[in-house]
Amino acid sequence: MTYQTILEFKTAGRGTTDITDAVADAVAASGLRVGLAHLFVQHTSCSLTITENADPDVRRDLETIMARLAPDGSPAYRHDAEGPDDMAAHARSMLTATSLSVPVGGGRLLLGTWQGIYLWEHRTAPHRRRVVLTVL
Amino acid sequence: MTYQTILEFKTAGRGTTDITDAVADAVAASGLRVGLAHLFVQHTSCSLTITENADPDVRRDLETIMARLAPDGSPAYRHDAEGPDDMAAHARSMLTATSLSVPVGGGRLLLGTWQGIYLWEHRTAPHRRRVVLTVL
Amino acid sequence: MTYQTILEFKTAGRGTTDITDAVADAVAASGLRVGLAHLFVQHTSCSLTITENADPDVRRDLETIMARLAPDGSPAYRHDAEGPDDMAAHARSMLTATSLSVPVGGGRLLLGTWQGIYLWEHRTAPHRRRVVLTVL
Repeated sequence: MTYQTILEFKTAGRGTTDITDAVADAVAASGLRVGLAHLFVQHTSCSLTITENADPDVRRDLETIMARLAPDGSPAYRHDAEGPDDMAAHARSMLTATSLSVPVGGGRLLLGTWQGIYLWEHRTAPHRRRVVLTVL
Repeated sequence: MTYQTILEFKTAGRGTTDITDAVADAVAASGLRVGLAHLFVQHTSCSLTITENADPDVRRDLETIMARLAPDGSPAYRHDAEGPDDMAAHARSMLTATSLSVPVGGGRLLLGTWQGIYLWEHRTAPHRRRVVLTVL
Repeated sequence: MTYQTILEFKTAGRGTTDITDAVADAVAASGLRVGLAHLFVQHTSCSLTITENADPDVRRDLETIMARLAPDGSPAYRHDAEGPDDMAAHARSMLTATSLSVPVGGGRLLLGTWQGIYLWEHRTAPHRRRVVLTVL
């Protein structure tokens, strides 16, 4: 059995959006009991990550670390057509995940207690983002 | 056919544990001939990686590189509830993989000659870690 | 239904090779309508990434960023058996992806408009690389 749908999210600019509940709801709707939930962002300037869901400072610190690894507006970048956050966004996407998958068992996502699934917007402006969910 | 089990590992603190044989044994037990073996860590301060399995210096050097990319105890971190390695562990997890999958063919993992599958503990203290294996 | 094949590519040394068309052709040959296309490199010194396919400067800038994150010939490395780019290549592989998967719908890869799939050679010399494609 394969179930596929597209989830759409509006981001508020750079930062993380918790999409765990949306994914869990879609998995429940699929009726799958045991298998995988696969997520794929159809963009190259946002990405997916699974991280700690309790303390918001964790995601804030991840931003701080990313700002050091892939800074905005580096003079070394050639690609800056859409502004100083353009190339940084592609780099942050490359360092995290365009696709990830979570096991499903007993009809639900087998996440650990402290794990949340996040859509990570790397552009500074708000965007509408598409995530393909495939359950199999 | 879907086969799912949980593999448990005790880590000795920060560093890599070779889990290739444990995964290969579980795949053999599943009876799958052709498909995918999917691994998922249920934690946000350890992760998975596939890297060179011959020279232990490779994994040592990966630690050295990670210590530069995500240092312990940075004054820029806000999240330090569990000590100086707490936030660094989440960052190292974000930069590597919470989920990965390996193709199965002829009933065995289709790894390259020099590839090993590693559970990477990012906390300095030993932990018990859970990896969900889904074979499909 | 599971379809599995091995795609072989010759790289020209460090840099990206667009493998989107080769993957799309193999998916079409598989006959799958809805599911996942899973890619796996059988090497530890090259990797996979999905990034912007319009402006070649994006991939050039990704190299620039990688050269800062995982420089060649760092005196901190112990593993240098195959030259100054040896350990850097393993590190770049660790920071990107050994395995990734793309959803398939209506018989084709559900990539976003600006997404290309790239095989990223991290060694400076040309290599022959194997990518296992599993469609399910």
